[in-house]
Amino acid sequence: MIREPQPGTPIEELDTPALLVDLEALEYNLESMARFFADKHARLRPHAKTHKCPQIALRQLAAGAVGITCAKLGEAEVLAEAGVRDILIANQIVGAPKLERLTALARTCDVMVAVDDEANVTDLGRVCRERGVSIRVLVEVDIGMHRCGVEPGEATLALARRVAREPGLEFAGLQAYEGHLVMLPDAQERAARLREALATLGETCALLARAGLPAAIVSGGGTGTYDVSATTPPITEVQAGSYVFMDAWYLTVRPEFRPALTLLATVISRPTPDRVVTDSGMKSLTHEFGPPQPLGVVGLGLPRLSEEHATLEVTDPAAVRLHPGDRLRFLPSHCCTTVNLHDRYYVVRNGTLVDIWPIAARGRAQ
Amino acid sequence: MIREPQPGTPIEELDTPALLVDLEALEYNLESMARFFADKHARLRPHAKTHKCPQIALRQLAAGAVGITCAKLGEAEVLAEAGVRDILIANQIVGAPKLERLTALARTCDVMVAVDDEANVTDLGRVCRERGVSIRVLVEVDIGMHRCGVEPGEATLALARRVAREPGLEFAGLQAYEGHLVMLPDAQERAARLREALATLGETCALLARAGLPAAIVSGGGTGTYDVSATTPPITEVQAGSYVFMDAWYLTVRPEFRPALTLLATVISRPTPDRVVTDSGMKSLTHEFGPPQPLGVVGLGLPRLSEEHATLEVTDPAAVRLHPGDRLRFLPSHCCTTVNLHDRYYVVRNGTLVDIWPIAARGRAQ
Repeated sequence: MIREPQPGTPIEELDTPALLVDLEALEYNLESMARFFADKHARLRPHAKTHKCPQIALRQLAAGAVGITCAKLGEAEVLAEAGVRDILIANQIVGAPKLERLTALARTCDVMVAVDDEANVTDLGRVCRERGVSIRVLVEVDIGMHRCGVEPGEATLALARRVAREPGLEFAGLQAYEGHLVMLPDAQERAARLREALATLGETCALLARAGLPAAIVSGGGTGTYDVSATTPPITEVQAGSYVFMDAWYLTVRPEFRPALTLLATVISRPTPDRVVTDSGMKSLTHEFGPPQPLGVVGLGLPRLSEEHATLEVTDPAAVRLHPGDRLRFLPSHCCTTVNLHDRYYVVRNGTLVDIWPIAARGRAQ
Repeated sequence: MIREPQPGTPIEELDTPALLVDLEALEYNLESMARFFADKHARLRPHAKTHKCPQIALRQLAAGAVGITCAKLGEAEVLAEAGVRDILIANQIVGAPKLERLTALARTCDVMVAVDDEANVTDLGRVCRERGVSIRVLVEVDIGMHRCGVEPGEATLALARRVAREPGLEFAGLQAYEGHLVMLPDAQERAARLREALATLGETCALLARAGLPAAIVSGGGTGTYDVSATTPPITEVQAGSYVFMDAWYLTVRPEFRPALTLLATVISRPTPDRVVTDSGMKSLTHEFGPPQPLGVVGLGLPRLSEEHATLEVTDPAAVRLHPGDRLRFLPSHCCTTVNLHDRYYVVRNGTLVDIWPIAARGRAQ
């Protein structure tokens, strides 16, 4: 069976596939983002869906984050158990088993959830009263992504009033995520369209304030938009997550952060001069944003992934001397979903293993 | 924290997302495949990469399988620990840590591996002699997939000779997987092209036999080709895996099996009459073969997946009465990679939970 490698092991001796976190790059990203937020009115509440790892969440808090965002109740439970005290579950929590768990979680930390449905508000309020807890609620507003969320304006006000009337619930503000804009490649267009969407959201906030329901928290933003989100009213909290790791896509639009996440693979076959095959396919690397990128080797094409193999065309056979047993590192094309395939990070600094961090919330999809 | 549901729980009360295995459909598929192989010369060695689950591997053996195939050494370790005695790792095992583990595994079960590289044969032989074990080796032949494998003919004979000369290794035969053909939608074209590829492989087997190195085992085939593989020389073992579960793609070409794997999801938002959102995105369902299919509801389009959401267009708002809290089942588009995202199967029969099976080899990518 697998024996975990000890700190001090050189990268070259790690078994593969292994998801590596470069601690220096991670720290650089944490510090860069903290420096950016130091003089902003908006606060950073980083999204833990990217890393699913208490060790990283605690570092984000130590760097000044106001709390942690996560996608799933199961992730929040893992983070709370590790000592995170202020958690936004940026999703609707629906169904009796989860509502029970949510109230249990609310006894161990400050938790916020999103709502966009009246019946869900009723259910939430009832179970909170039954269990004697109070939770903070953000009304989710659809600012153009067309996933969850009520319409801005009167519909938002109506649901906010519904929350405020419900004993056991505290109306804490709004959530509005511009998921339809974060991937726009052109920075100016991204900024302009986000400011437009936030102007509408600002009008809704004004409407709420006039109705005596000011939105203390307005949560939105991602790594693609954090700078605009953090400096444009009415946003008060930014949910950026991918900045800690970055990936091939985000690096094209966010050169101020460094790649901290790579997949270490082993060449298992060099069947012909023009082909290299590694032990890392779509069960170790995701590809919805394109293929992962091989690093540090000139003369290799992008990989074709099958389940457990990456097959790379060698465009310059004279230059590529890879043989079975040699290592190859890939830059993932999407950090969040790639992390979701792995159980642990091999944390490295200067080419040496310094720690292994369990991806403790992986698989906690419920 | 999550409390696991007890046997007897109705499906409607299971928390979500939950990967369901319909035991009746699973048993039907196991029996159908066993019946097919009952009078064939070739034997079934089902691929456990699909399910990664000892409970299912043991059922496949009980139904007459000659052994189990897997993709990774880590999967083989899990299966051996559960009592599987004859395992083909249908891949190259490369690098010192894995070779050590392979020899340890060889002391607990009969294990076979694939090779396509002389230096790898040397390494394998040396570590087997050092540890006092002997393992069976299949030479992998490239019959057109262009991933791993040596060329048919003299190159295969040369590597087979190399294996046969190496004390500690036993030349057991060939592996040749037609991964480039299994997804061809047209059954006649699929069969014709496979027979063509196997004719070349047959010539290589004849060459080996004349050289005094008969291939006792010739392993290939998948769910898309099992019937042709099992009835066309020189194949002696078929590696089909997906037949146990099936998925949206395989059902289009293999109507003789039944869908046994579904994802149970919860509607978490119905923000507008024309939109339904569930709690199941690309961290619960894969989509490299297209979107998963919602089951049992007329008037819904195919989902757009984000990380933790499936967003479905309602094409007939009057007919679709789904509200937050309602359940929706999805048929995965690719069973093997979807399973790779989950930690357990919720095993159901007649609408009721009967067991929970850990997906024990999930994450065992090393």
